[in-house]
Amino acid sequence: MWKVIFHLEHDRSCKAKSLPSQGKKTRQRILARALKIAGREGVAALTIGRLAKELRMSKSGLFAHFRSKQALELATVEAAEQVFSDAVLRPVQISRGGVGRVWNLCDLWLRHIEGRLFSGPYFFTGALFEYVGRSGPIAQAITRVSQEWVYTLRKTVEDAQEKGELNQDIDASWIAWDLNASLLGVHFAYLLKGDNFAREARTALLGWLRKRATEEIPEGAFDSIAAWENYLRKRA
Amino acid sequence: MWKVIFHLEHDRSCKAKSLPSQGKKTRQRILARALKIAGREGVAALTIGRLAKELRMSKSGLFAHFRSKQALELATVEAAEQVFSDAVLRPVQISRGGVGRVWNLCDLWLRHIEGRLFSGPYFFTGALFEYVGRSGPIAQAITRVSQEWVYTLRKTVEDAQEKGELNQDIDASWIAWDLNASLLGVHFAYLLKGDNFAREARTALLGWLRKRATEEIPEGAFDSIAAWENYLRKRA
Repeated sequence: MWKVIFHLEHDRSCKAKSLPSQGKKTRQRILARALKIAGREGVAALTIGRLAKELRMSKSGLFAHFRSKQALELATVEAAEQVFSDAVLRPVQISRGGVGRVWNLCDLWLRHIEGRLFSGPYFFTGALFEYVGRSGPIAQAITRVSQEWVYTLRKTVEDAQEKGELNQDIDASWIAWDLNASLLGVHFAYLLKGDNFAREARTALLGWLRKRATEEIPEGAFDSIAAWENYLRKRA
Repeated sequence: MWKVIFHLEHDRSCKAKSLPSQGKKTRQRILARALKIAGREGVAALTIGRLAKELRMSKSGLFAHFRSKQALELATVEAAEQVFSDAVLRPVQISRGGVGRVWNLCDLWLRHIEGRLFSGPYFFTGALFEYVGRSGPIAQAITRVSQEWVYTLRKTVEDAQEKGELNQDIDASWIAWDLNASLLGVHFAYLLKGDNFAREARTALLGWLRKRATEEIPEGAFDSIAAWENYLRKRA
């Protein structure tokens, strides 16, 4: 008991003057393991006992960093959010925008599957299907990530329409739904049979862009995925 | 302890001569509640303690019906499989086949979302994203349902191609992936914002069928969803 209190006090005082290197490292080590477990088996699989065992730490040592199971779960979801944001959402912000950014965003999403960004398929599709409609900070965080993803997708499409590179005859929300659906389908097929439909998805995406693009985009850019990527590089 | 053993013996002897009405009813009552919890919060949310509390039963009473947490989880997943199969997979078996069955299958899938067949969105998309790649009977059962769904979808498309009602220029696996992706997208959008893209999905599906159908299907059948459903009724 005293040990727990000592750790809590220690953690509290550390927080006040920002965590020292060792405390930060331990916290990161715990979160990395938690992310690995949750990414494969879901947030519900996280327990202080299991983490303590896998990390060869005392439960009280863990409690010093995460004062409750809920705090640990929330920190894990937020860490996953950071990973997803850094790999998929943020990189497109520096791209030129327009139709190229629509491509970039979908391409980065596909890469996060192909590159196994997480240890398993849980974040964030599985997480959404498990937590949406439930209350509490974990459910809110998980829903927020999916909302941000769909918002970014829609905004990117709208931007391409406003820049005059995509026809405005179809509502951006519907287009975003359609793109998201294709990506979910790729993930599902990949999980189930290892079928890599990412190539088909990229080909379908390019065909779709060709059909919807305005005359601002030269016809030859759509000849192949290589031609398209070459065109994007040149105009960047 | 004696109580547990008594219940186990009781359950065992009942099983031998098929469970009597009361035992069956209790088992069904437990499974119904388990299905409700898991459908909303996932299989991991099932605990003997929680179920016992919600059903106002003793834990030993529950253990009499499900000898372990794993047995309870597996029985719950199998009950969900039965519900899904009865609502989506089986009804199409009696339909005529061909392009109408492709429509029926997707329509029934959309209805299972619209009609909230389960208490929440977990079965089976969330379940797949949480369990695929893991070992054990629960993961196997969950993966089996998704595989059966995709297999049924592909077989239905192949049948329509073999009957000469759908062009054979595209591989049935790819078409099944495309259809599955649209349905997943509908579910995702519905969860996140309550957006009902099911109408758009049905319209898109009809447009897709029109484009791929052979001359076996009269052109007027594709005029609207109502016209299409009318055509299917007449030819049934």
